[in-house]
Amino acid sequence: MTTALVLDLLGTFAFALNGALTAVRAARLDIVGVVTLGMITALGGGILRDVLLGALPPATFNDWRYLATAAVGGLVAFGVSGRFDRAATPIAVFDALGLSLFAVTGAAKAMSLGAGVGQSVLLGTITAVGGGTIRDVLVRRVPSVLSSELYAIPALVGAAVVVVAARLGDTGTLWAVVGAGACLTIRLLGMGFRLDAPRPPGDGRTAG
Amino acid sequence: MTTALVLDLLGTFAFALNGALTAVRAARLDIVGVVTLGMITALGGGILRDVLLGALPPATFNDWRYLATAAVGGLVAFGVSGRFDRAATPIAVFDALGLSLFAVTGAAKAMSLGAGVGQSVLLGTITAVGGGTIRDVLVRRVPSVLSSELYAIPALVGAAVVVVAARLGDTGTLWAVVGAGACLTIRLLGMGFRLDAPRPPGDGRTAG
Amino acid sequence: MTTALVLDLLGTFAFALNGALTAVRAARLDIVGVVTLGMITALGGGILRDVLLGALPPATFNDWRYLATAAVGGLVAFGVSGRFDRAATPIAVFDALGLSLFAVTGAAKAMSLGAGVGQSVLLGTITAVGGGTIRDVLVRRVPSVLSSELYAIPALVGAAVVVVAARLGDTGTLWAVVGAGACLTIRLLGMGFRLDAPRPPGDGRTAG
Repeated sequence: MTTALVLDLLGTFAFALNGALTAVRAARLDIVGVVTLGMITALGGGILRDVLLGALPPATFNDWRYLATAAVGGLVAFGVSGRFDRAATPIAVFDALGLSLFAVTGAAKAMSLGAGVGQSVLLGTITAVGGGTIRDVLVRRVPSVLSSELYAIPALVGAAVVVVAARLGDTGTLWAVVGAGACLTIRLLGMGFRLDAPRPPGDGRTAG
Repeated sequence: MTTALVLDLLGTFAFALNGALTAVRAARLDIVGVVTLGMITALGGGILRDVLLGALPPATFNDWRYLATAAVGGLVAFGVSGRFDRAATPIAVFDALGLSLFAVTGAAKAMSLGAGVGQSVLLGTITAVGGGTIRDVLVRRVPSVLSSELYAIPALVGAAVVVVAARLGDTGTLWAVVGAGACLTIRLLGMGFRLDAPRPPGDGRTAG
Repeated sequence: MTTALVLDLLGTFAFALNGALTAVRAARLDIVGVVTLGMITALGGGILRDVLLGALPPATFNDWRYLATAAVGGLVAFGVSGRFDRAATPIAVFDALGLSLFAVTGAAKAMSLGAGVGQSVLLGTITAVGGGTIRDVLVRRVPSVLSSELYAIPALVGAAVVVVAARLGDTGTLWAVVGAGACLTIRLLGMGFRLDAPRPPGDGRTAG
């Protein structure tokens, strides 16, 4: 198993937990709905990336490990959802983990398929935010990518780290970990301190 | 006309009626909105399937009969919508018919394009639930695939029947009809008896 | 720079302004949300078109001018949003401009990639209404294409003008301008006079 695949499956698992717990918490769905939302959240970003790259059918459909990881994640989340007391914090942390891992694996896959620097950063970001955006639309929330403190920006940073490293000739594990760590750190700091990006002039609201 | 095409067009017609009646009932749209939602519901699942298979442009765009069937279905539904008294039952039955027919035709098309067993079952299910999911998002409802009693499961069963039969060498009409019938039966039973899949532990609600 | 590219970039800019101002007005997002919604609105229709045509990766990802135009449009809208007083009229006019330009450029691109007459008209319409539909879903509104007075119909007319002209051997700038002008005129008249398409029989509401 390559490092990229391990990171990708970890991201898939984190997003499956997140999506399934969101289904329990936000929409109070039954087991099929819970596992379905977990799987859509886990697989949506990668499917979007592969559709946009023209790498069809998506990796998700060609490699059973993605489907299996997403399904197991959804089932685990369903099983433990009573104990989690539907707390918001673990849900948000799983989301931040998936975001960070998919930003670097998405960007690395785009590079490996010959996409340019700017495209790869963008596709990494889309991979990272895609599943969560579909999740939010399905449970009728304004997507995090539009409303959250620092959601797209940490993904852009994480993707940029691996793309720049790859351009400089280093496609190793180190920079993937650094990129994901940078994304995760910025995202968690943004959540912890409720940092917001600037609001429109004259908006009359202050961050925080 | 092959059996697969006939079943596909029947499914298209059922979903066009369903989507257009939903537009009248749930969102009180004008004729363009009604026919548009009918066509999106009817064609959305097949378009998703073809995008995921990389079979582009989608069949819908290469064969005018899909577009024509979807448009006629939408117009018919608009014309009769006064008489239907916006009742929920025919809308749900058209949805169940479209679900059942698309589960088997979607799975069969995936098989015929060389997809594996698991992929074909999944793609059949996506074809079946895709149009209705887009419909629900557009009229701002939590999608049936997440919230309904037994919606994805009957589609999985219907798709599995034709995929297993095809693996055993039989791609004839019989198993398509059996698969669609199994899906329709489970779906209608689920609706009739309001069967729900299990809910999360500690949810405090009983199915019923 | 070809005429098609100029019209496409103008449409991109108009939709970026529209999407970003919508983000300020409808959802009161921060700068990242505002620019993100502007870019999604500006690029969504063209991405949908290219996915459906199998022309992947989308033009948006291969030509930095689309991304740059969309980003600048979003930033400009963010900067001036205080002065616009969040008025509805400029937002709607930018939407009508994007709709008109994308209807003709989308149809022309479909023709140039070998799509048939009906397909090209449909793909032009999808290009025109696609970005705004994604925008509306993300900020949780019933999409204009379903609910608005004359939204899809002017796009169909604009797309049909360039497709018919191209069939008759004339792919010049003149008919693109005529098509976009026809679309814009119908759309603005529809908005100004609140013309609605016919409603379902027995609906009990009158247009206006």
